[in-house]
Amino acid sequence: MRVSVIGGSSIPPDTAAVAEELGIELAERGHTVVCGGLGGVMEAVCRGAREGGDGSETGDEAEPGDGVETIGILPTDRRTDANPHVTTPIATGLGHARNALVVMNGDAAIAVNGGPGTLSEIGLALAHGRPVAGLDTHDVEGVEAVDSPAAAAEYAERAVTETGPGP
Amino acid sequence: MRVSVIGGSSIPPDTAAVAEELGIELAERGHTVVCGGLGGVMEAVCRGAREGGDGSETGDEAEPGDGVETIGILPTDRRTDANPHVTTPIATGLGHARNALVVMNGDAAIAVNGGPGTLSEIGLALAHGRPVAGLDTHDVEGVEAVDSPAAAAEYAERAVTETGPGP
Amino acid sequence: MRVSVIGGSSIPPDTAAVAEELGIELAERGHTVVCGGLGGVMEAVCRGAREGGDGSETGDEAEPGDGVETIGILPTDRRTDANPHVTTPIATGLGHARNALVVMNGDAAIAVNGGPGTLSEIGLALAHGRPVAGLDTHDVEGVEAVDSPAAAAEYAERAVTETGPGP
Amino acid sequence: MRVSVIGGSSIPPDTAAVAEELGIELAERGHTVVCGGLGGVMEAVCRGAREGGDGSETGDEAEPGDGVETIGILPTDRRTDANPHVTTPIATGLGHARNALVVMNGDAAIAVNGGPGTLSEIGLALAHGRPVAGLDTHDVEGVEAVDSPAAAAEYAERAVTETGPGP
Repeated sequence: MRVSVIGGSSIPPDTAAVAEELGIELAERGHTVVCGGLGGVMEAVCRGAREGGDGSETGDEAEPGDGVETIGILPTDRRTDANPHVTTPIATGLGHARNALVVMNGDAAIAVNGGPGTLSEIGLALAHGRPVAGLDTHDVEGVEAVDSPAAAAEYAERAVTETGPGP
Repeated sequence: MRVSVIGGSSIPPDTAAVAEELGIELAERGHTVVCGGLGGVMEAVCRGAREGGDGSETGDEAEPGDGVETIGILPTDRRTDANPHVTTPIATGLGHARNALVVMNGDAAIAVNGGPGTLSEIGLALAHGRPVAGLDTHDVEGVEAVDSPAAAAEYAERAVTETGPGP
Repeated sequence: MRVSVIGGSSIPPDTAAVAEELGIELAERGHTVVCGGLGGVMEAVCRGAREGGDGSETGDEAEPGDGVETIGILPTDRRTDANPHVTTPIATGLGHARNALVVMNGDAAIAVNGGPGTLSEIGLALAHGRPVAGLDTHDVEGVEAVDSPAAAAEYAERAVTETGPGP
Repeated sequence: MRVSVIGGSSIPPDTAAVAEELGIELAERGHTVVCGGLGGVMEAVCRGAREGGDGSETGDEAEPGDGVETIGILPTDRRTDANPHVTTPIATGLGHARNALVVMNGDAAIAVNGGPGTLSEIGLALAHGRPVAGLDTHDVEGVEAVDSPAAAAEYAERAVTETGPGP
């Protein structure tokens, strides 16, 4: 399935570590990562997603080029603005309005920290009927607060199993 | 100035009364109302804005046709979807992505009640640097909770005076 | 009714004169002008629309403040980017994607000269089922070539009478 | 590089054959295909792109799973609306405004046949500075008319070599 990961573009190192661990977790579970394509949480989760999926959960050897697809839906009209760990950059030129596309393209969303932009993505995800897990993020109704990347991934998987994938 | 009023499309009567009073208040202060153009809070605030601005604050007689401009920025591509109190309907065909346009076109935002869509508009307003007053709405950082339409209008006016109008 | 006027932002003086005359013509017929809000044809038609509608066709005296509403749907997220003759600027932050909104918000479109952006608006207008008149513009199927602002306005009026206003 | 392929959603069999051949051609040259994700030309070119890239130009054996990436940028908010040959569906919910994203995400565009929607994409591609080759499509300035899928691919490659890839 696809998981939208949302969070701030300017973050402290410990938040980056959480986001990167989340990327590894999602990759090991075989999920495509969708994000806003820029820096901060978006870059850290993509880096993790490209490092992960290395077969460690199946006992396979890690190989260069392992890692899941990372889709970066950018606010600008330049796909070269994507961070280097995005495998499929999508330019939009829509500014903040692209936030709707970020969450629409996942079956579930996981918020990591984040400011107003992330808050808007939480609202848009819920408005589109997507389940949302939160790691140290806004405390709003509808967001399932979790305390680890693994718990976030598990919540997303369980919710999508129950409600079905995004349309 | 322009004030974006955001809130749910399906609301109980007391919320509608608050939104309508807010519309009257904004009209009497001479502000253009920007909203999402549909029902619920959007319709009630437009109705109030068209009834208000009747000169009562200046001692003038009320006249037919009084009331301020109400701009409705619609999610659909049909401007006929606007509620009957919208004077300037703008069709977008953008779905929830139009939420960004609703708040971008005001100098400040006032949230009344509301669900996930309103939450996204609060986030987008803050992301665009707009001050936000809240009447019985989401309790999130950056939103000034107020307890009456007049207090909401006063907060919006004061904040815009301090920070300047939206660009 | 509403008429979308589309055309280039960088134009020679004679094209500006045609666009301004078109604005006067539309104002005298009482039509709201919708455009992209920037310079060139957009500015000239708005200037004409604000000067026109002065009652000359009915024998009334011209009055300050006469002229029809001019809606400028901007590519940027700053409504202050509108030309000074726009009465209702709408910021979008959508870049060229806002072209869809420009033609969606008129009952008919009139193209004046123009380059690739105008070509895209002609295509979008036709895709949305809007009749299109063209003054010295792209020669493409579906565009009614006319030779004067009055003929353009007449074609738009006649087509909308036949097919009904835009939704 | 990425090539945006634009064309009608309702097409006769011979146009479908040309679009499919174009997909095979682009795949054999190793280019990612970007399109609007729906039927007609969009489906045919994706089908070709998934069948092609089979190593025939290098003497390798064809393998199941060969074929290049096909990105489908959809007008709806449902990625399940993509045709079955799209490997990376992107939902937008933007309606015709998504046409801007289709051409923005390619380094060059190739138009096959097509009606008003395709015309708008040609205009948007040119407005974004992308070279455009045309196979039996609108005869407008800026479009290089070619007579075969191979010639279209060659024109796109040559133009991008000269002007650089899209940003």
